[in-house]
Amino acid sequence: MAGVLLDLDGVFYVGNEPVPGAVDTLEWFRQRGIPYLFLTNTTSKSRSGLVDKLRHIGIDTDESHLLTPPVAAVRWIQDHVSGPSALFIPEATRAEFAALDRVEPGSGTAAGAVVLGDLGEAWDFQTYNAAFRMLMNDPQPALVALGMTRYWQALDGLRLDVGAYVSGLQYATGVKPTIMGKPAAPFFQSALDIIGCTAGQAVMIGDDIRGDVGGAQSAGISGLLVRTGKFQASDLKGDIKPAAVLDTIADLPDWWRATNHYLH
Amino acid sequence: MAGVLLDLDGVFYVGNEPVPGAVDTLEWFRQRGIPYLFLTNTTSKSRSGLVDKLRHIGIDTDESHLLTPPVAAVRWIQDHVSGPSALFIPEATRAEFAALDRVEPGSGTAAGAVVLGDLGEAWDFQTYNAAFRMLMNDPQPALVALGMTRYWQALDGLRLDVGAYVSGLQYATGVKPTIMGKPAAPFFQSALDIIGCTAGQAVMIGDDIRGDVGGAQSAGISGLLVRTGKFQASDLKGDIKPAAVLDTIADLPDWWRATNHYLH
Repeated sequence: MAGVLLDLDGVFYVGNEPVPGAVDTLEWFRQRGIPYLFLTNTTSKSRSGLVDKLRHIGIDTDESHLLTPPVAAVRWIQDHVSGPSALFIPEATRAEFAALDRVEPGSGTAAGAVVLGDLGEAWDFQTYNAAFRMLMNDPQPALVALGMTRYWQALDGLRLDVGAYVSGLQYATGVKPTIMGKPAAPFFQSALDIIGCTAGQAVMIGDDIRGDVGGAQSAGISGLLVRTGKFQASDLKGDIKPAAVLDTIADLPDWWRATNHYLH
Repeated sequence: MAGVLLDLDGVFYVGNEPVPGAVDTLEWFRQRGIPYLFLTNTTSKSRSGLVDKLRHIGIDTDESHLLTPPVAAVRWIQDHVSGPSALFIPEATRAEFAALDRVEPGSGTAAGAVVLGDLGEAWDFQTYNAAFRMLMNDPQPALVALGMTRYWQALDGLRLDVGAYVSGLQYATGVKPTIMGKPAAPFFQSALDIIGCTAGQAVMIGDDIRGDVGGAQSAGISGLLVRTGKFQASDLKGDIKPAAVLDTIADLPDWWRATNHYLH
């Protein structure tokens, strides 16, 4: 094994509390110079906001060790798209897209990519229809989705998230979205590119059997499950079989040592 | 054959002009007491509005001979749903739902059915999220779609139609929609119930190889294609094979006579 991909929420912290041993685990990898990267689907915070939150609970890292859907989207667009991007994304993540040429929705200029995030209450018909019209251009631009989350729990009740809007545009336009975020394989591929490992050299650890473990496996990466965060015993009865199940992230160094000993 | 199902737009008229012989064809069926029914996906006009339009171009009929998605939806809800319906539909078709118990979106009362039509610019986040929240109730209500049209051509450009919104809610909630309108089989089943025929006794004629012919066939009904309206030669090269292709609706009486002669 040559590199490690780490889920954040439910693995390094639960709510605002760090998981005991999480800080030491990160230090263990750092001291050995093993490349690591945090993978999170969060789009409500920029990387600098995430770094602040992590520092607040005792985890010292920087933006280069965080892969979020916006970061993966920018990398993917730079590699695959020519022409400017139209951004339908919340204000909080707009700074992450500074490196891209942009086109304003409704300006009449053709886009190379249409990027969809969770706009929440800003999704009115005009805005949604502007994304639709750009996608109906010939040639059709790429549709880049910052995740496919169905909904989330707000203080006042459930709220539709980006997945519903991407799904509607896919139906109306026939354009297949490129999904940035777990469990989509291109997101894990971006992570491998960043840490400079092949799929066979990396391991992903998380608390979400589908998003973390299943997603990693779909990209050819070993997936480990922890029994913290959203873990439920029933996770182990489905189709997705983790390479190992650890009680917490604190057990990862022991697992790493044992696995590499066995391999060599 | 004992009954005939008729597409309107592109078959009986093209734009505002009746197809030559269309009026005589209708009269031919009427004189023989053969049950007929017009099937249209139009939701921008109520049945009384459609009757007026037809009369204006020389086709004399009444509301009982028109099956629209709202009419089929009301019949389906009365047969399959207990509890009130929440209507996300344009003002123009609201009168068609007068027979149903209704619940206001956002009132907190559980709905038996959530009905989605083309709300156009009235689709803001609050409205769409209200439909979503009602569908997330336990038990989940039925999701009734007034068609699955992807988009339409407005004067100022393309506009998203009901299909995009239904598709997004299906993705977010996991509720499979019941679709009212061609080519969905339940719509043709409603038509058979109204004219009192079995699928084997009826024939559907239209200019849309997928919506009219393919839809009828999926409900076990013979489908005829006319070479008027949206017909294109390439329609005959796909998977859907019409029982016959007529130059126009004016040829239907001859086809009917020949077919029934052959059958008896």
